[in-house]
Amino acid sequence: MRWIVRVNTRNGKITKTEISQEEMRWGGRLLISKILLREVPPTCDPLGRFNKFIIAPGLLGDTLVTTTGKFSVGGKSPLTHGVKESDVGGEAGKKIARLGIKALILEDIPEKAGTKVLAITANQLTLSDVPELEGKRVSETIQILRKRFGSEAGIICIGPAGEMKMLGAGVAVSDMNDIQIRYAARGGLGAVMGSKGIKAIVVDDSGAVSPHVYDEALLREASKTLAQAIMEDPKTENRHKLGTPAILLVANEIGILPTRNFSAGQFEKAEEIAGERVAEVIAERGGEGRSGTPCVRGCVIQCCNIFPDPSGKKTVASIQYENIALLGSNCGIGDLDDIAELNDLCNQVGVDTIETGAAIGVAMEAGVIPFGDAKGAKDLIRQIGQGTYLGRILGNGVVVTGKVLGIRRVPAIKGQAIPGYDPRALKGNGVTYITSPMGADHTAGNAFETAKTVNPIGKENQVENSRRLQIRAAILDTMGLCLFTRPPFVKKPELFAHFLKGRYGWNVTYEDVQKIGIDALETEREFNRRAGVSEEFYDIPEFMREEPLPPRNSVYDISMEEMQQIWEVKIPQDVF
Amino acid sequence: MRWIVRVNTRNGKITKTEISQEEMRWGGRLLISKILLREVPPTCDPLGRFNKFIIAPGLLGDTLVTTTGKFSVGGKSPLTHGVKESDVGGEAGKKIARLGIKALILEDIPEKAGTKVLAITANQLTLSDVPELEGKRVSETIQILRKRFGSEAGIICIGPAGEMKMLGAGVAVSDMNDIQIRYAARGGLGAVMGSKGIKAIVVDDSGAVSPHVYDEALLREASKTLAQAIMEDPKTENRHKLGTPAILLVANEIGILPTRNFSAGQFEKAEEIAGERVAEVIAERGGEGRSGTPCVRGCVIQCCNIFPDPSGKKTVASIQYENIALLGSNCGIGDLDDIAELNDLCNQVGVDTIETGAAIGVAMEAGVIPFGDAKGAKDLIRQIGQGTYLGRILGNGVVVTGKVLGIRRVPAIKGQAIPGYDPRALKGNGVTYITSPMGADHTAGNAFETAKTVNPIGKENQVENSRRLQIRAAILDTMGLCLFTRPPFVKKPELFAHFLKGRYGWNVTYEDVQKIGIDALETEREFNRRAGVSEEFYDIPEFMREEPLPPRNSVYDISMEEMQQIWEVKIPQDVF
Repeated sequence: MRWIVRVNTRNGKITKTEISQEEMRWGGRLLISKILLREVPPTCDPLGRFNKFIIAPGLLGDTLVTTTGKFSVGGKSPLTHGVKESDVGGEAGKKIARLGIKALILEDIPEKAGTKVLAITANQLTLSDVPELEGKRVSETIQILRKRFGSEAGIICIGPAGEMKMLGAGVAVSDMNDIQIRYAARGGLGAVMGSKGIKAIVVDDSGAVSPHVYDEALLREASKTLAQAIMEDPKTENRHKLGTPAILLVANEIGILPTRNFSAGQFEKAEEIAGERVAEVIAERGGEGRSGTPCVRGCVIQCCNIFPDPSGKKTVASIQYENIALLGSNCGIGDLDDIAELNDLCNQVGVDTIETGAAIGVAMEAGVIPFGDAKGAKDLIRQIGQGTYLGRILGNGVVVTGKVLGIRRVPAIKGQAIPGYDPRALKGNGVTYITSPMGADHTAGNAFETAKTVNPIGKENQVENSRRLQIRAAILDTMGLCLFTRPPFVKKPELFAHFLKGRYGWNVTYEDVQKIGIDALETEREFNRRAGVSEEFYDIPEFMREEPLPPRNSVYDISMEEMQQIWEVKIPQDVF
Repeated sequence: MRWIVRVNTRNGKITKTEISQEEMRWGGRLLISKILLREVPPTCDPLGRFNKFIIAPGLLGDTLVTTTGKFSVGGKSPLTHGVKESDVGGEAGKKIARLGIKALILEDIPEKAGTKVLAITANQLTLSDVPELEGKRVSETIQILRKRFGSEAGIICIGPAGEMKMLGAGVAVSDMNDIQIRYAARGGLGAVMGSKGIKAIVVDDSGAVSPHVYDEALLREASKTLAQAIMEDPKTENRHKLGTPAILLVANEIGILPTRNFSAGQFEKAEEIAGERVAEVIAERGGEGRSGTPCVRGCVIQCCNIFPDPSGKKTVASIQYENIALLGSNCGIGDLDDIAELNDLCNQVGVDTIETGAAIGVAMEAGVIPFGDAKGAKDLIRQIGQGTYLGRILGNGVVVTGKVLGIRRVPAIKGQAIPGYDPRALKGNGVTYITSPMGADHTAGNAFETAKTVNPIGKENQVENSRRLQIRAAILDTMGLCLFTRPPFVKKPELFAHFLKGRYGWNVTYEDVQKIGIDALETEREFNRRAGVSEEFYDIPEFMREEPLPPRNSVYDISMEEMQQIWEVKIPQDVF
């Protein structure tokens, strides 16, 4: 049996409904979009009674297929005012899926703010007040919950920023042994969780009954094929050794690395903060440091790391490209220890590193602190956690920061900060940022993947390419697969069909699988259309159309009209 | 000859173009909407290069018809992200019109922020740097400009809030003898002017040639008829004696007076802040105090006042209903001297009293200072002028304040604060706030005028009534007539035709006049549609649909669907 679980945060009522045949075919991102369109008034206040906070494992979430421990978190975004799906690793996703929960939906808001904990086990769901969690940082929250719920539980929680309903707040997830803090970081979903008065969701799947699988052998075979293909892919080794920061030097080389509030695409200290340097430091310092760790059990890529301080004690896990780009070069900060500490501070107070790094960059441009001032930047993030006025400004993201500080050069699209790929020199990402229902989000269709086949600085094929990438991303986000599993599917697209046949017995073609991605995008676009945040109303920030980006000195020059063609352009049958 | 004058604030180029036959038929609000739709990309950054700051006298602006010294200020609003027209009295409007300027358009933005002054005379337009104006409050700005430009010039300027591009900033206009500071307050147009680097516009019409008038006698006769009809209207005497605060006790009685962040519609100290009390205090104290003064030369209503301190020295001029409602009862402040001082502080730092009073109410709800703390409120407005972090939060208006302080009960629609009429007990204004292209703006169609004929708390006829009121307002705003000239037109609608025939020789019917209002609204709606801020995407704040408003205990219950019918509903042929 598979369930949709609803928790009414106003009256405490919890209901479990068996899912319908139709709902069975939805998962992760697609399921979130369907629930939002069906149940959430598109023009509602994202932090009000009618928004819903939704957690949904992907279609393969309850299998052992590699990386499928990831799960989707969603709702109407208080940043973009449109649909938001943000996926995340850690321990909770697999446990939710194993308990048969297709979607967990937090509804309404409580009369009084609070720090309730929702505990989920195989036998029951309970909602209880835990006042001592009020204002607690993320690691401390996890420690307190461990004492009460034991070491095996998966934990989903927010930091003080989420409690304060800051629009830059994310949703944190514990990993194995509480080493890494994983984040469904984007879109302000931490504020939505906070608005529901829920500080944490704790999942214990002891006693869960494994789901009925249609064809165990076929599933196992497909799973093995995928894992092998990933291991054989040349990118995997690089990712394993250097993590996502592996791309930093390439990003710097092609000139898209956000530097000093997106005023340059190359950073003079790039080598000091590159993936190679991350790996070196980890190797040199030893201790708790580690390269090549997984964010979910069963992942064969293992692109994460534990970054140690000079004494070998963990500073943060995992340090990733986006963290380094936005909190590092974008703030003119070129020291990995500083960046690791900034990253950990964001994780602790509970804010998205992209949104926060961009906001600090704008504050630096406004003269609040100078570019390169790592000590000052740490203080700013602490202020977010403390809720000082300046902290509240920054914690509400880059658009609010730009408005309040009177800065025009604000790197944001549809209310959300631009991630670590300046669209002036990677124009496909500009198309994605504008046309994706998610706003400025590289995971919605990252043209960095195709920088060798589509000239990143040219205008040609950017729109078609973005569309393909967006459909790909939507499929993977619906399956519950990590975006890094993509390369094998390029060679073996039939694998998707094998997975769905093996798990569910569905006879689907590769074309049907593509329709899953298109369905997710169309459903999201329809929600956004009704919410008044269609892609047609947003352009690249004006400064990016007029200020050439050093060193390539290109401006963004794909017109709104060209970008609006995206859902009509012809793309190859095969999107992978 | 009638001109459109364009000032490019980037390269300093000034051009004068003779208007076309088509443009000749537009004025004030209608002209602004036509220019915006024709020239401003609807999705542009309101504080960026492509927005325009437009000043336009009404169609009767260059005549001696009573109240037509008012003029329209417009642009894309940084608060609502849609079209904005805000009209204002003072001295400058008549002078601009007498110089033959149909529209003055500030274009582009400068490379570097600054405090330039645009000086307009009959012979030339000059743009010059006046660095000493930087950061200066409004009265000090006017004093400095007087020394340079003489006592006869009309002055339009911004305060420090506009220079800092705060979204709550308005545009100030001097009156005769610099007694009153008049404001085109709403929509954040002061920030748009600030973004253009223009601190002030100074207009001297010495040597202006009077326009050619088609039928002087007809115009004079119609003008006399209007003035007489106004004088005979029973409301006029009340307005003259008590000013706009004349309505406060009625507003309190019917339960729509915003009190303590819109948590009640009646204020226990209403009598102490009512129009009757304003008049009493002025009479008791004498000195500079005065009731019944005009805001433009030639106005026969003269609803303004000069409010003195206990020693008889002017505190503020003029104190009006909206100031008292938002800075007074809405903040739990029941002392007229305090309110007058708060009002003057807003005038000096250059912010809209409605937006700022609403923001302070939200800050009070957040616990920044308690309700009723007048001293604290004054300090907050001073902080706006100083640009402290808290001041910047508040100066950016109620929506930013609510986001940053994490407050859900935010009285705003389409990004703009709700004025002094709670829509739960005056439902017609709810319809106007939602469906007007201007967002929450009572001057766009105020159902208070019709509270005797349309039950303010019922659902019946609210949509039709709002439509009529909106068309009326658009006609008057296009003519350049004060909204208070409306009553005579109800009895003598043919007056409009006489005015247009007399001034321009147009043969228009009353139906043609109505089409002017409809044209303005349709043009504005088209701009908003393209900007993504159509009325269909906005609802009344959620708390107003669920929290009954004491003492009538009504909630807002007109559905979005019903409100969306507004442009299709049948209304009487005669909208006056």
